[in-house]
Amino acid sequence: MKDIKKNASVIISASWIFTAGPEDQLLSDYAVVIENDKVIDLLPQNKVFDEYEANNNYQLTDHILIPGLINTHTHAAMSLFKGFADDLSLQDWLNNHIWPAEKEFVNSSFVKDGSILALSEMIKSGVTTFNDMYFFPEATAEAVKELGVRSNIGLVVLDFPTNYATDPEDYLVKGFEFRDKWRNEELITTSIAPHAPYSVSNEAFTLINTYSEELNINIHTHLHETQWEIDQSIDKYGITPVQRLNNLGIIGPSLMAAHCVYLNDQDMDILAKNKVSIAHNPSSNMKLGSGIADVAKMLKQNLTVSLGTDSSASNNRLDIMGEMRLAALLIKGTTKSPELIPAKEAIKMATINGAKTLGLDSTIGSIEKNKKADLVAIDLSAIENQPLYNPISTLVYSSSRTDVSYVWIDGKIKLKDKKLVNIDEERIIQMAKKWQRKLKKI
Amino acid sequence: MKDIKKNASVIISASWIFTAGPEDQLLSDYAVVIENDKVIDLLPQNKVFDEYEANNNYQLTDHILIPGLINTHTHAAMSLFKGFADDLSLQDWLNNHIWPAEKEFVNSSFVKDGSILALSEMIKSGVTTFNDMYFFPEATAEAVKELGVRSNIGLVVLDFPTNYATDPEDYLVKGFEFRDKWRNEELITTSIAPHAPYSVSNEAFTLINTYSEELNINIHTHLHETQWEIDQSIDKYGITPVQRLNNLGIIGPSLMAAHCVYLNDQDMDILAKNKVSIAHNPSSNMKLGSGIADVAKMLKQNLTVSLGTDSSASNNRLDIMGEMRLAALLIKGTTKSPELIPAKEAIKMATINGAKTLGLDSTIGSIEKNKKADLVAIDLSAIENQPLYNPISTLVYSSSRTDVSYVWIDGKIKLKDKKLVNIDEERIIQMAKKWQRKLKKI
Repeated sequence: MKDIKKNASVIISASWIFTAGPEDQLLSDYAVVIENDKVIDLLPQNKVFDEYEANNNYQLTDHILIPGLINTHTHAAMSLFKGFADDLSLQDWLNNHIWPAEKEFVNSSFVKDGSILALSEMIKSGVTTFNDMYFFPEATAEAVKELGVRSNIGLVVLDFPTNYATDPEDYLVKGFEFRDKWRNEELITTSIAPHAPYSVSNEAFTLINTYSEELNINIHTHLHETQWEIDQSIDKYGITPVQRLNNLGIIGPSLMAAHCVYLNDQDMDILAKNKVSIAHNPSSNMKLGSGIADVAKMLKQNLTVSLGTDSSASNNRLDIMGEMRLAALLIKGTTKSPELIPAKEAIKMATINGAKTLGLDSTIGSIEKNKKADLVAIDLSAIENQPLYNPISTLVYSSSRTDVSYVWIDGKIKLKDKKLVNIDEERIIQMAKKWQRKLKKI
Repeated sequence: MKDIKKNASVIISASWIFTAGPEDQLLSDYAVVIENDKVIDLLPQNKVFDEYEANNNYQLTDHILIPGLINTHTHAAMSLFKGFADDLSLQDWLNNHIWPAEKEFVNSSFVKDGSILALSEMIKSGVTTFNDMYFFPEATAEAVKELGVRSNIGLVVLDFPTNYATDPEDYLVKGFEFRDKWRNEELITTSIAPHAPYSVSNEAFTLINTYSEELNINIHTHLHETQWEIDQSIDKYGITPVQRLNNLGIIGPSLMAAHCVYLNDQDMDILAKNKVSIAHNPSSNMKLGSGIADVAKMLKQNLTVSLGTDSSASNNRLDIMGEMRLAALLIKGTTKSPELIPAKEAIKMATINGAKTLGLDSTIGSIEKNKKADLVAIDLSAIENQPLYNPISTLVYSSSRTDVSYVWIDGKIKLKDKKLVNIDEERIIQMAKKWQRKLKKI
């Protein structure tokens, strides 16, 4: 009987849907049916209303619907340092600008406000999940709760003291206190985040490895970001950071390694054999003069490569759509192989590969029945996107984050017709300006 | 007497003005005074209304005003091929997609419509001058007249026949007929545009050189875009294309060379000594897998380097702001020197260096008294651009072409609050869709 229809929370009809699922489907004139936080069906628009009725219906003509974008490496709170110091050598940038400013200003309030600013920018850019590493994780979590963005929050560990903690044990104690307190929060998962091989001792890594194994928790670290880091490791330990971490048991499927700009064949083999996931941060690596990661070689070795923005201090855009295009262009330019990372693969790097990196691919990263309703609709109707022979290609090579017009996270609408829902953008802008006046005194 | 004020056409007050003039001034709370097609004054906002009165006043808070962006290498009409064929090897892309489509579809009507689409996109992206090379230049000129964008239109020359002309002489005859007919059009200048060393014979280059010298007209060509082109030249002529063109007298200050991805030391010296200008096209060079130009070396040799998008067929964005950011990132990543092309220099590549490339730097390329009023205002008020420590850095590294909100060309307003003035965007979109349906048949 046709008149008995199933209830649903939301039905989104879009001109095109790219699922990023196992079959890489590009569906035309399909609809996604959402019940609460989950996608429950995916069917042609001309059938969906025979089967379902929903309170909220979206008819998105000229839009492509894709899984929410996943930013696998960032330090959200640092968005308050966006444009604070640019075009400087890494040492000058860190020693004379970023570190002194962090020492003077970073506290719980800075981290909450900075994260709110970052999450606003990420939602508007189609990012529905981010993998974070910074101080005062509870403040990040408060921003996450306020704005409703899915997050994997790193419990940062360093050898040296900061405003947040004093030594590795103190970082870990604080991290786990935070984790225990927030463990029932739907949108939050955690990882242990030893900052980098050069800033964390063998003893601390060993401790981290134990916790990671016992609690089945991922590890998020900066790895082989600069040549300096490798030279320093060889000087101090006689081996590369990858080899050192391998000896310490850190290299494994639970490791999310950011950057990996420099990997020799042996390092690459170690990462590949141990199924490490890599967060590729092309803008940040270039802007800081770190270099350009050899993603072609990573892909040949079947490594999972996802995309990160890094922080606003070294990128100035939390724009995964931009990183998607850049990653696709960069591999073509550096290898002279224009077939590498075609548009479809670029979208997968920014979605399902991100989910795999975070170990969340059973719940997010593609548009499939029973996965979380983390969805982004991009409006391809503007002049800049015409003519439109192939929506996947148009999405990656022509459109911009400003074409993102609707975002749902965990089934809830977060961006509607390019406006943040239930968030006062003007208040956030004023808050950013307040910090700007404060920080400019330096 | 204060009450006797000078008349002006337009007064634009902006929070910041970057002049790109000899002193690289970043002015705060200044105003630009325009009379007809020219900038006639530049003075503090708190003084401008004591001296001038204008019918049209713009108060652009949170905006940075810069000289109009200059796109020094494009094939505007090819915007109808945007997204037509992507992620393919150069030979496959040309032989199996672009060339057959050009043969079937390119005519005067294609070129006019394609140019209208491209010019709409360029105005919205802050581009006020473009350096073009394509068939049917008169159709491009008609689009230029209709939309009012400044242009340097190439009189294309090839050895082989196309829909447009049969042999070098025929190309030149048609080109000069066009040039003579349109020579009084304020917004149009011309160059001779031998397509590339591999597609133009020594005889034709010799003829072109004679015309260029006699008529004092610039030459625009593709040069050293791919390694294939260099290998082919060495096979056929025993020397590189640069060396060959040097022997033919083509290499000189009137040469605008697009790409220059591969230059050996000798080639680079020849270009530097002869003050050749280079149009750097980073997106296109990467997308086609051509490679990455060594801009650091060019800058060390004091070569003038400006920015081009190339066509929509190989870039998919006619977005000089995007190329500006990409050029700044790419040089840092490839040389590991984050100090190279700081934000300010990136803007100059996209403005005054473009004007120098076209030989038009006495009239455009910077905001100075008596120069043409080609101006772009970028709105930096959005969340993505906060906090704002340095508007120049924010412009290059955080903002996007969609932040461009006002554009003036030759003193006339072309974009107002992000909307094209006197141009029906919907009509252009429908026109692009019409061609899309036609071309998709291939």
